[in-house]
Amino acid sequence: MSYKKLDAKDIEFLVSILGKDRVFTGDDINDDFSHDEMGGISKMPEVLVEVLTTDEVSKIMKYASDNVIPVVARGSGTGLVGASVPIMGGIMINMSRMNKILEIDEENLMLTLEPGVLLMEISKYVEEFDLFYPPDPGEKSATIAGNINTNAGGMRAVKYGVTRDYIRGLEVVLPSGEILEVGGKVVKNSTGYSIKDLICGSEGTLGIVTKIILRLLPLPKKAVSLLIPFPNLDMAINTVPLIVKSKAAPTAIEFMQREVILAAEEFLGKKFPDNSSDAYLLLTFDGNTIEEIEKAYEGVANICLEQGALDVFITDTDERKEAVWSARGAFLEAVKATTTYMDECDVVVPRNMVAKFINYTNELQKEFNIRIRSFGHAGDGNLHVYVLKDDLTDEVWDTKIAEVFEAMYSKSRELKGLVSGEHGIGFAKKAYMLEQLGPVYVGLMKNIKLAFDPKNILNPGKVCE
Amino acid sequence: MSYKKLDAKDIEFLVSILGKDRVFTGDDINDDFSHDEMGGISKMPEVLVEVLTTDEVSKIMKYASDNVIPVVARGSGTGLVGASVPIMGGIMINMSRMNKILEIDEENLMLTLEPGVLLMEISKYVEEFDLFYPPDPGEKSATIAGNINTNAGGMRAVKYGVTRDYIRGLEVVLPSGEILEVGGKVVKNSTGYSIKDLICGSEGTLGIVTKIILRLLPLPKKAVSLLIPFPNLDMAINTVPLIVKSKAAPTAIEFMQREVILAAEEFLGKKFPDNSSDAYLLLTFDGNTIEEIEKAYEGVANICLEQGALDVFITDTDERKEAVWSARGAFLEAVKATTTYMDECDVVVPRNMVAKFINYTNELQKEFNIRIRSFGHAGDGNLHVYVLKDDLTDEVWDTKIAEVFEAMYSKSRELKGLVSGEHGIGFAKKAYMLEQLGPVYVGLMKNIKLAFDPKNILNPGKVCE
Repeated sequence: MSYKKLDAKDIEFLVSILGKDRVFTGDDINDDFSHDEMGGISKMPEVLVEVLTTDEVSKIMKYASDNVIPVVARGSGTGLVGASVPIMGGIMINMSRMNKILEIDEENLMLTLEPGVLLMEISKYVEEFDLFYPPDPGEKSATIAGNINTNAGGMRAVKYGVTRDYIRGLEVVLPSGEILEVGGKVVKNSTGYSIKDLICGSEGTLGIVTKIILRLLPLPKKAVSLLIPFPNLDMAINTVPLIVKSKAAPTAIEFMQREVILAAEEFLGKKFPDNSSDAYLLLTFDGNTIEEIEKAYEGVANICLEQGALDVFITDTDERKEAVWSARGAFLEAVKATTTYMDECDVVVPRNMVAKFINYTNELQKEFNIRIRSFGHAGDGNLHVYVLKDDLTDEVWDTKIAEVFEAMYSKSRELKGLVSGEHGIGFAKKAYMLEQLGPVYVGLMKNIKLAFDPKNILNPGKVCE
Repeated sequence: MSYKKLDAKDIEFLVSILGKDRVFTGDDINDDFSHDEMGGISKMPEVLVEVLTTDEVSKIMKYASDNVIPVVARGSGTGLVGASVPIMGGIMINMSRMNKILEIDEENLMLTLEPGVLLMEISKYVEEFDLFYPPDPGEKSATIAGNINTNAGGMRAVKYGVTRDYIRGLEVVLPSGEILEVGGKVVKNSTGYSIKDLICGSEGTLGIVTKIILRLLPLPKKAVSLLIPFPNLDMAINTVPLIVKSKAAPTAIEFMQREVILAAEEFLGKKFPDNSSDAYLLLTFDGNTIEEIEKAYEGVANICLEQGALDVFITDTDERKEAVWSARGAFLEAVKATTTYMDECDVVVPRNMVAKFINYTNELQKEFNIRIRSFGHAGDGNLHVYVLKDDLTDEVWDTKIAEVFEAMYSKSRELKGLVSGEHGIGFAKKAYMLEQLGPVYVGLMKNIKLAFDPKNILNPGKVCE
């Protein structure tokens, strides 16, 4: 597919729609727009535009379609797989000024909002109405549309599911510029193929989300976290299937290792409640009364102690909770700060395979003589494993990272895991997805892409291409 | 598209795969296979086959693809929109003997099963492990694959969501005969487009489901139902948004009218606990202790009494529960037994619009001088409205039903509802979906259909065609 390079006439068109102040070219485009949070893949767009309305997005998309110009929509740029990098150049649409919360509907427990609203703003806003938006990815400055495009999961997926489970309606601009309203303020829907669920997780390749209706829950009145030190990671992680089997239904089950905690302390300049043990589980329980929560966590605390836990710290004050969860929220940044560069593996495996996988990464660490750090969602089998470049030369790094990743994804396949639990495929993980799913499966995805985008102009070169 | 008519060579091929005992033609095909539960649309397949393995399904599909023969997969035939009727003839694959539960995995809380397992068997099976499969559609003799293909919801959707929310992995035979494994025993997945969510709700048009991995929850230890009589339906239904807003999180909120209860009593030959009032709400609350449940329902009981409820019957004994819920489960059959023929409208509207919609159907009843009966899921806005033919001639019926349906779907659009909440589009509701969603949206669905099925052989003429 050959794309049109933008010329003065194209820029003139964009200015006619948006005005001069919202169209940027050349040096006026901040370098940040050339890459995402991981930074490995980088390319500047030919033009960057800021939009304020669905109608503007639609007009731009129609023009791009008529002229075969590639388009990438971008939110906060907090992705980790290059999904929002404009690898073919063209137009980048910055969606982040479409950031209004439009309506809270307390009779239907629904929130209507624009795509650029940040995750941190949603929880703050709805909690004032005693309501709850459960998905809780670590990166709170991501936009809601970014979360929808990767089907982000986060800490509370163990009990509450992922972003997909909370989307009730979407307004989507198709690659042709046409506008679809999908779903609505309805709890059930069996009206044709679920376009909503295809858009969710499509990493900006099938349509541009311009409005969202989210389902909310009543806010649980109380939450208690347990920080549970273990002598080693194996003992910690092997306890998780027993917790799941006990049917105590915690909200979150995170695992963390001492070295990551130390990095977070250093990064934040704040002490973690305890850093004397090698490995920890961090569990949360929520509910409407302390008694109900106590009943749930007592059994789990006993299971952990029987399995060799050294202690059980109950963090029920706001101050303690803040110390624990702000550290957990900073893990990615903290690990990143200890090295020159890193790449991430976001596999998801069956919950009872987490220990096997993490042990395997420990072996790889020794075998390849490279630092590997991991943390993640032990309760839902989604691991974030970081391979660190440190002082390796580019050449050595390129070889090692390819071999280490190949080994990790191959292990994940063996354990019946999948390439991505919540960060997506984007550009960086395409080869691994193809290797796991095979050409028939990925070929079907390509056909679906063409069903939405016959000219292949919307975020081309991503996911299945 | 012109399809091949089956000849002796085709039958020979099917016999070579399945043996003579599992291939039926002509009078050997029971008439039941020509229609579904609603019965309005009817056509015999040219051949009916019974399959036992995925490999058999794959071989049949490949042959059908090579020879351009239409294929329809069928479970229990409990659908209500003609989705499983072989309107183009061809091969009907009866999936109902692929009905084994393959594995219960207590460490991952997952159940692996074949497509023909009946809904009633699933709940019974998992409850013995103290586990819970929440979706609870009224028709318990439906197969799990049928539930997946319509994204069935059922009574507990208010709290627990719908079938889609519990599917973790699928094995699917594509129209080409190729076999895909989608998802797995994983809690999160962002590995490419969600084929799983497209198959769910596709009414057998995109692929044939041959294996399923379901997510389970810990079984709530206690459940209590409240049967709440109101002087009239308006007062009952207008209370629902207040219950939702109160954040008490009931499992189910059903509404029912006296005339439907009387029909169920007659049909079952059993008394309902109370039939003296015009309208009722039936609520369920579940949890792990009676105290926790009491706390939740006391507030709701007070709201109902403040809104004019005549009483609050607490049904906490097994006997009482059975009386109430067996009646609720028999509503469809009971209404059907009172008339010569009926057709159903399965709209879903925002929860706070339920009363408006039901009042409107009451007006239609008078305006068109036709019996209309309704019941359904007040808590999630999904209504089952039945228009009864009684002693109308075919001619009068055809005219009236078209006008009444047109009026109901138009009202639903006005209230921001959708054509189907859980029974699907199939053959019967295609025109209404097209009218609501428009040609761009339905055109996109057609493109998706072609992405899966370029020869249009799998359940042709349904949903978006």
